[in-house]
Amino acid sequence: MIRTGNVEEMAGQGGIADPRLGGHFRVNAGGALLVGGRTADELVSQAGGTPLFVYDRAVIDAKIAALRAAMPGSVELHYAVKANPYAPLLAHVARQVDGLDVASGGELGEALASGMDAPRISFAGPGKRDEELEAAIRAGVTLNIESEGELERTASIARQIGRTLAAAVRVNPPFDLKGSGMRMGGGAKPFGVDADRVPSMLRRIGELGADFQGFHVFAGSQNLNVDAIVEAQTQTLALVADLARAAPAPPPVVNMGGGFGLPYFPGERPLDIERIGNTLGESLSARPDILRDTRFVLELGRYIVGDGGVYLTRVVDRKVSGGETFLITDGGLHHQLAASGNFGTVIRRNYPLVHAAQAAAPATERVNVVGCLCTPLDRLGEKLMLPRADVGDLVAVFMAGAYGRTASPERFLGHPAPREILI
Amino acid sequence: MIRTGNVEEMAGQGGIADPRLGGHFRVNAGGALLVGGRTADELVSQAGGTPLFVYDRAVIDAKIAALRAAMPGSVELHYAVKANPYAPLLAHVARQVDGLDVASGGELGEALASGMDAPRISFAGPGKRDEELEAAIRAGVTLNIESEGELERTASIARQIGRTLAAAVRVNPPFDLKGSGMRMGGGAKPFGVDADRVPSMLRRIGELGADFQGFHVFAGSQNLNVDAIVEAQTQTLALVADLARAAPAPPPVVNMGGGFGLPYFPGERPLDIERIGNTLGESLSARPDILRDTRFVLELGRYIVGDGGVYLTRVVDRKVSGGETFLITDGGLHHQLAASGNFGTVIRRNYPLVHAAQAAAPATERVNVVGCLCTPLDRLGEKLMLPRADVGDLVAVFMAGAYGRTASPERFLGHPAPREILI
Repeated sequence: MIRTGNVEEMAGQGGIADPRLGGHFRVNAGGALLVGGRTADELVSQAGGTPLFVYDRAVIDAKIAALRAAMPGSVELHYAVKANPYAPLLAHVARQVDGLDVASGGELGEALASGMDAPRISFAGPGKRDEELEAAIRAGVTLNIESEGELERTASIARQIGRTLAAAVRVNPPFDLKGSGMRMGGGAKPFGVDADRVPSMLRRIGELGADFQGFHVFAGSQNLNVDAIVEAQTQTLALVADLARAAPAPPPVVNMGGGFGLPYFPGERPLDIERIGNTLGESLSARPDILRDTRFVLELGRYIVGDGGVYLTRVVDRKVSGGETFLITDGGLHHQLAASGNFGTVIRRNYPLVHAAQAAAPATERVNVVGCLCTPLDRLGEKLMLPRADVGDLVAVFMAGAYGRTASPERFLGHPAPREILI
Repeated sequence: MIRTGNVEEMAGQGGIADPRLGGHFRVNAGGALLVGGRTADELVSQAGGTPLFVYDRAVIDAKIAALRAAMPGSVELHYAVKANPYAPLLAHVARQVDGLDVASGGELGEALASGMDAPRISFAGPGKRDEELEAAIRAGVTLNIESEGELERTASIARQIGRTLAAAVRVNPPFDLKGSGMRMGGGAKPFGVDADRVPSMLRRIGELGADFQGFHVFAGSQNLNVDAIVEAQTQTLALVADLARAAPAPPPVVNMGGGFGLPYFPGERPLDIERIGNTLGESLSARPDILRDTRFVLELGRYIVGDGGVYLTRVVDRKVSGGETFLITDGGLHHQLAASGNFGTVIRRNYPLVHAAQAAAPATERVNVVGCLCTPLDRLGEKLMLPRADVGDLVAVFMAGAYGRTASPERFLGHPAPREILI
């Protein structure tokens, strides 16, 4: 649970830095967790109750600023709406990034409502329905085409409604991002077009008279290995330079995907984004002529918002069973499926978690923090050390800014929806 | 994918039985899947689109009738709302069972709205909030008390609002239901009160003047081993007979839990519920005097509704990658998390799945059926054999009646909610 990265960034926000607090947060003189300068009790009062997701603008802004500082000035920064579509957060992020990436018609609507200009929105996803394609074409966003069949369907819809199709090709690269939380490239995949079939698809885009927008290459996600990320970026540049020779025009945009991971667990270290940025800068300086006027995009979701979110849940019961102490909270896997270990993980590990009012106090007992659902799957913290917590106390689960509420079965067992605030 | 059980039960519904169809469904003369006598196309037209959950009253009714026939006449049958709270289905089931079990204040509201009498509703769950306890006491439902702390909180609320508390004790048994999908008893658990501490809790219930309602013992779920179920039932009877000696009165009700599993995967066989019922009947005939006037309840959710549901989703794209064929549908893990292999399972296996219009046709190609979400987790059927399916065709996923919609992250990636119909 020790996290040491980025504590220094938060200097000047008041309070005392403590490495247990998910890397970005502080405690007050009484040892209570502060998020945006407020205690958990104050935040819950403001929001009206628990369970509560708190998203801290300052942390998000610092992440974006650090990315801007580390990456080459010419590289554009996109936010992947799927990571967290909460409207106030999305609007806040949209003002600071160069574009948004969406994965459904629903997210398209949310992205347009955030204030982002349509030409700066791109839409990827392996199963776009006709009505989603039509909405995207009408809005004037870029469609990342995922298959030959989708290209024909999309072109047909564009013709029917008398619009020009803005089409990029999503490429299934012949490599993956090694060591990723999720592999998105390499081998047989439902995402994108296998690289060896992209040239014929590019010719077809030319025949159809579509407005060629470039390439989208996404090789993996949640990666903490700088060398692997650098290698994937280098491979991506080489791949798109090669594919561009078959394109109707040089690619206006190359979305290089993301893959930047966050440390969640003990022993994991924050990414050295300066090194990624320096190497990417060198690769871009040496890029082939056919990519000379191309805009390069990094698409990040989790990395921008994941560690700026805290989930606050209240202890409803404290009990002992079989010699173990259980703290039962009013939250759980219906809001925090990934933290419960039930989404995309094989081996469950505890997300960083503290007793909010005593975040800096010595841990004095071993407890199991569970949710209120009547299922043994609903675990938030197993066998972890905390200061004593009683009924009514608030627990804070960090790393709650991405893939939390919308990636969880909110209606499971009929509990109330969580609250959310952006501070 | 071969399922042979219970096909005979459906005789008289018309159509031809086929063992691939999840055990309960038939095909018409053209080989198309029939659910409730209607084709998938007809059902989708009726409901207005896909993805669509279809729940078949006839299958559910047959399951309840089979349970009634197999179990001793004195045993009451409860439905666990968490398995599927869809209001028309819940109202339909409520008319045929003896009680409902709920796990939250939200489910309590749904159970009351179904028409079930409040005294026939019980409320279990490890983290009941004060407002949920108050609502339950006001409604007059039985509270399955999960800890000493919850007993004191509940008694205090009852006093404040001038009501008598109807309290059963949820016991964490010193045994589990061996081989269960989920173990709910044995060892340290957040559920219930360890058996060795129940006697002192029973004395406290007497002191508080609460209306003692008996015991709730839940040892496991989704079990296909008759011997294990019989053993757990026998152990439960012995345990509650022993605990009853410390109670303020003989237990009016003993909820023996459920645990009756359904076959989902090749090689699994339907439970022999006749044998369970016969053995339970013998055990009950020989029960100790202190349980002479006790009502015994079986609480089942999945077993009643799980195989009566079919999830229909439409093929949106068909593509080849790395030599494999992918059928990409408009559904996915946002409606069918468990079928995708991401909820409570370690090793993913395919739920039974057919090409709806050609459900009885010979399988001619190996395909991967995936959902529309932009994540490699979104798999519905991996490397399975189907007749050729094209864009626009409907795929039917069986075993969709329980832990489907509400147990899935419906808002993930911003796709539309599924439709549901009860036919």
